[in-house]
Amino acid sequence: MPATETMRPEVTLDDIRKAAVRIENIAKRTPVMHSRGFDAEAQITAFFKCENFQTGGAFKIRGASNFVFSIPKEDLAKGVVAFSSGNHAQAVAIAARALGIPATLVMPVDAPRSKLEATRAQGAKIVEYDRFREDRAAIGARIAAETGATLVPPFDHPWIIAGQGTAALELLEEVPDLDALVAPIGGGGLMSGCSIAAKHLRPGIRVIGVEPEKGNDVFLSMEAGSRIEIPPPDTVADGLRTPVPGIITFPILQRNVERVVLVSDDEIRAAVKFLLTRLKILVEPSGAVGAAAALFGKLPAGLGRVGIVLSGGNVDFELLAGF
Amino acid sequence: MPATETMRPEVTLDDIRKAAVRIENIAKRTPVMHSRGFDAEAQITAFFKCENFQTGGAFKIRGASNFVFSIPKEDLAKGVVAFSSGNHAQAVAIAARALGIPATLVMPVDAPRSKLEATRAQGAKIVEYDRFREDRAAIGARIAAETGATLVPPFDHPWIIAGQGTAALELLEEVPDLDALVAPIGGGGLMSGCSIAAKHLRPGIRVIGVEPEKGNDVFLSMEAGSRIEIPPPDTVADGLRTPVPGIITFPILQRNVERVVLVSDDEIRAAVKFLLTRLKILVEPSGAVGAAAALFGKLPAGLGRVGIVLSGGNVDFELLAGF
Repeated sequence: MPATETMRPEVTLDDIRKAAVRIENIAKRTPVMHSRGFDAEAQITAFFKCENFQTGGAFKIRGASNFVFSIPKEDLAKGVVAFSSGNHAQAVAIAARALGIPATLVMPVDAPRSKLEATRAQGAKIVEYDRFREDRAAIGARIAAETGATLVPPFDHPWIIAGQGTAALELLEEVPDLDALVAPIGGGGLMSGCSIAAKHLRPGIRVIGVEPEKGNDVFLSMEAGSRIEIPPPDTVADGLRTPVPGIITFPILQRNVERVVLVSDDEIRAAVKFLLTRLKILVEPSGAVGAAAALFGKLPAGLGRVGIVLSGGNVDFELLAGF
Repeated sequence: MPATETMRPEVTLDDIRKAAVRIENIAKRTPVMHSRGFDAEAQITAFFKCENFQTGGAFKIRGASNFVFSIPKEDLAKGVVAFSSGNHAQAVAIAARALGIPATLVMPVDAPRSKLEATRAQGAKIVEYDRFREDRAAIGARIAAETGATLVPPFDHPWIIAGQGTAALELLEEVPDLDALVAPIGGGGLMSGCSIAAKHLRPGIRVIGVEPEKGNDVFLSMEAGSRIEIPPPDTVADGLRTPVPGIITFPILQRNVERVVLVSDDEIRAAVKFLLTRLKILVEPSGAVGAAAALFGKLPAGLGRVGIVLSGGNVDFELLAGF
């Protein structure tokens, strides 16, 4: 076994089960929805894991709270710092508030106002940056060094991955006989955790990742067999603008994900509208890429019973109104 | 007991329980939602009965299917006819389709396109009319006379009222200790049925009705002590444009409803946006009047645990985008 392999921290089903217990008082067990209208349109049997109803409006609280609640006691008082387009920031703020510790969030100036405001409402300090010109990781690292706060990474950490995996754990507990699992891929934390849970609970399950066409770093990386970095993506799916897969997440994706499919911004908007007007639920663009892939024939044919993670529901009304 | 009293067909809790059994394969047991954010804003503890997730996107399937499934066998083959701004039409079309009988729906030309299209998609025949110039009841009666079809009234019939009451039956089964029940009033079918169920299951419950300011016929009628007809209301709450309370529903409302409160169109739009962006659910303007009353301080103070019926979710995206 090569050195890189032994040094890579593995995330196991047991880690995910422990995370589920650790976060049970802060993360909701979100509902699974089904729609005959969607199934007829997409020619699959879809089971939607509705993380848009999650605490903070997105799955991010799962990983963020699992991480924050795992920080050693002696470090906790110095607080936490995180960088995020919005949902991870809000989740870290909520988890920090639950423990009564300070939180600083580094967020892009063009993040959805609703996400900025919701994060601020949790009592967190916001530091804004220009995501086309500044390096958020460097800003976060500097704040961590200056304050002694613990940096809560958005996706590339075993505690985050284990937390996110609890979404698939719940989904497969509720619908054990899924043929496939479809989830968005940004940095890959959600898909890494969910694919680990799904493959352990149901080894034959097919796992399909979805990216926006304009944020196809994981698609390209999977083709190349190594991590490819793209320019900062400019897609309506603001939660999937990560330009490069994670060091920890990428090999997990390579191992578990059969295929990454791409959807256009127009297809994403159409999926958001379909979920809104037909299922009566609000899903943000990043959260709707799985539904978009199903509605626009991007998934492999004959998938059967498909679990689709609707990863969040935080979208500015003004943006939505323009769809 | 005066003659009018003895001639009035009473609707009992038993009728509502029988309706629940009759419609159980076509109407969904909709979820009850709770939101700490809403509670903090409205200063109550709200339990939302989410009829926006109902078959056909509104509570109307409860009464329509209870009626259609109660039509004597010998009359069924000639089909059904109904007049409605949309949700009742769609519900009648769905119930008729379930039995394989023809349905004709008389709908206003300015009904939401989504409601017209959804009704047509159920295989029903649509007859459009001008609601400011034509009498839909007369058109419906003429079609019934010509074809022998049974007229399915939108609200003023014991079978309809019993069906609509199943919404409150389910809500009180799930949250038995409600202090108050809040529901929209159009023709009064929903509120009549729900108030009968609520008052029988929990005699001390306070029942509050909500109307749009511009469609305040029940408010005025309650003040006057007799049925008042207003000009055709022009409110964003298209399902609450009924200009006069029903002959059967009005005395039920008089008996059970403590107060009717009014909300403006702006308050309705704001409530729709709040439910959308905070609870992540789409509720149509008519369905959101109860939430609007709670958010804008229109309910009596100190209500406590309040069941609020969100009666439907059918709204054109284009209309919503303008909110």
